[in-house]
Amino acid sequence: MEKIFSYAHLLNFTEAIFRQIGCSSDDATIAAKTLLSADLRGVDSHGVARLTGYVRLWEAKRVNAAPAMKVIHETPSTAVVDGDSGLGLVVAPYAMKVAIEKAKNVGTGWVSVQNSNHFGIAGFHAMMALENDMIGIAMTNASALVAPTFSTERMLGTNPICVAIPAGKEPAFVADLATTTAANGKLEILQRKNLDAPTGWIQDKEGNISTDAHALKNGGALLPLGGDREHGSHKGYALGAVVDIFSAILSGANYGPWVPPFPAYVPMPENMPGKGIGHFLGAMRIDAFRKADEFKEHMDNWIQRFRNAKTVVGEQSVLIPGDPEREMEKERLETGIPLLQVVVEDLQNLGKKLGVEL
Amino acid sequence: MEKIFSYAHLLNFTEAIFRQIGCSSDDATIAAKTLLSADLRGVDSHGVARLTGYVRLWEAKRVNAAPAMKVIHETPSTAVVDGDSGLGLVVAPYAMKVAIEKAKNVGTGWVSVQNSNHFGIAGFHAMMALENDMIGIAMTNASALVAPTFSTERMLGTNPICVAIPAGKEPAFVADLATTTAANGKLEILQRKNLDAPTGWIQDKEGNISTDAHALKNGGALLPLGGDREHGSHKGYALGAVVDIFSAILSGANYGPWVPPFPAYVPMPENMPGKGIGHFLGAMRIDAFRKADEFKEHMDNWIQRFRNAKTVVGEQSVLIPGDPEREMEKERLETGIPLLQVVVEDLQNLGKKLGVEL
Repeated sequence: MEKIFSYAHLLNFTEAIFRQIGCSSDDATIAAKTLLSADLRGVDSHGVARLTGYVRLWEAKRVNAAPAMKVIHETPSTAVVDGDSGLGLVVAPYAMKVAIEKAKNVGTGWVSVQNSNHFGIAGFHAMMALENDMIGIAMTNASALVAPTFSTERMLGTNPICVAIPAGKEPAFVADLATTTAANGKLEILQRKNLDAPTGWIQDKEGNISTDAHALKNGGALLPLGGDREHGSHKGYALGAVVDIFSAILSGANYGPWVPPFPAYVPMPENMPGKGIGHFLGAMRIDAFRKADEFKEHMDNWIQRFRNAKTVVGEQSVLIPGDPEREMEKERLETGIPLLQVVVEDLQNLGKKLGVEL
Repeated sequence: MEKIFSYAHLLNFTEAIFRQIGCSSDDATIAAKTLLSADLRGVDSHGVARLTGYVRLWEAKRVNAAPAMKVIHETPSTAVVDGDSGLGLVVAPYAMKVAIEKAKNVGTGWVSVQNSNHFGIAGFHAMMALENDMIGIAMTNASALVAPTFSTERMLGTNPICVAIPAGKEPAFVADLATTTAANGKLEILQRKNLDAPTGWIQDKEGNISTDAHALKNGGALLPLGGDREHGSHKGYALGAVVDIFSAILSGANYGPWVPPFPAYVPMPENMPGKGIGHFLGAMRIDAFRKADEFKEHMDNWIQRFRNAKTVVGEQSVLIPGDPEREMEKERLETGIPLLQVVVEDLQNLGKKLGVEL
């Protein structure tokens, strides 16, 4: 059962909730926009359904609603940002702005972030670069759910990478991908429906490939993109590892199995080597390489050639990364965002507690 | 049947061959070292076995043995290099040096390269950053062998990405991966042995997943990392696309199906939109983010924790990206590089033609 809400309605509600926990008006707006960009783009697992989870982290004093974010180390093209335990939804856009400013000055900007929290979808942050005629890059580590190739231990998060690239007449190219075969949100859908998972998504606690969608809850793990060694899981593992290192070892955040969990009821790992979770954000000015117009013409040509590539029987066209999310955003801005009844009730309860009506 | 050659012996031979086609002494040395780094690291498909192929490209006037490489556009943190149709084996190290110099000045350096040729293994170039306490990144596009998700057309190369990250007491982390399920070299081994390929490596000309290792020769295609949509092939496709765009649309090289082929007998694509093939190289100074010693301590901790993660029954330990290649390099420096008889004969014929004894 689903109920439909307009984007404006959910935005107002979410802003009000964030203000109620102590966010400044500006921070509440940016946090709400970041969070809801996931609902708009169809990444329902990372959107307003998580609002209560963020508030619980604040209640557990793991999130600071009024962080004093600052640059603690920098060069002309790099910086490390201390997020002061703020919402990642606010810290990552701050850090991305630093990256964009640096790119304006010296061509590119690269910012590693410590002491942050979950930042929503990577796409929102990377896409901030587009309006500046820049390529945007965003990645984050996350609490460990993924077993490296040959391991039974959860050592990495789903560690997504987003690369957003401006085009001319065509819409931007936006590749936003977890470095696992499947995102955890897709697995949760199968769990709710009691359906089997395809092979290559998860393993059980002994490390056998499993199709039991509940194996993750029983000591299993998500698998790196590729699934198993024969199908290149060592590549997915390596990519997830790069995200972890860029996000956390460059910045001084926690990494690997020490990344703090999102659910506030899960205890923090012992002997944590850093501060909070880490992100890595980048911006590259197009005209630091060649004239922006020339670049965009060729991007249009690239996109059109790929979109028109011959398809296998039964498929309409080759998709350009970002196509499905953009179409979803257009649709949901027009017709609204559907929320499951269980999410609606959760938000209603949250609203009652904080004096905000849904 | 194999014959063993010492590294020094093959290096001398390869340098002499490159000098004979007109490379300067310095260029011949760097080209030979780049090429043979593949043999040392066990990537036999990209090593000296390809020397005759490079010479054929020179004979076909597709490679300029004495290129006037130059920076044609730059900012403090970026550059575009024109490789003047030189060997990628020489052009990429030149461009990587530019990236490293920029990183020395402003923290990071990012160089996109046009008008180049096949650059050997990405790992060699990325690893140049390590001795400067920098993270190195190398990627290249390549002629189209890979079908995007839902397509029957070959639109992308195997487009590898390498990220090399320095550590302290531990050896460096070096992730070097084609953005396909399996590298073409692995498929060639199956073809030679007439063995089936695992599912998810290739598709036939209609776009059906195939286990026929020869399907590629019969109009099929390699598959992006993930294999099919259900297993995340859209992610491998997106990563390969990012490599293509960074390497070629930022620089003005050819992209997608227009990338020039490696075999000199294959005609060039029609209506090429750029110059030669493209690379993208990056260097990030560790201490542009935090003290290098601190970073390295945490990298050692990361590596040790992952290496000691619990394994599935039957596996000795979790591998750190770069482990197998480093062990192979150590072994082959000591005991020599084995070459198949067919490669030995090919090199002997090449030597005779150019007046160099193997």
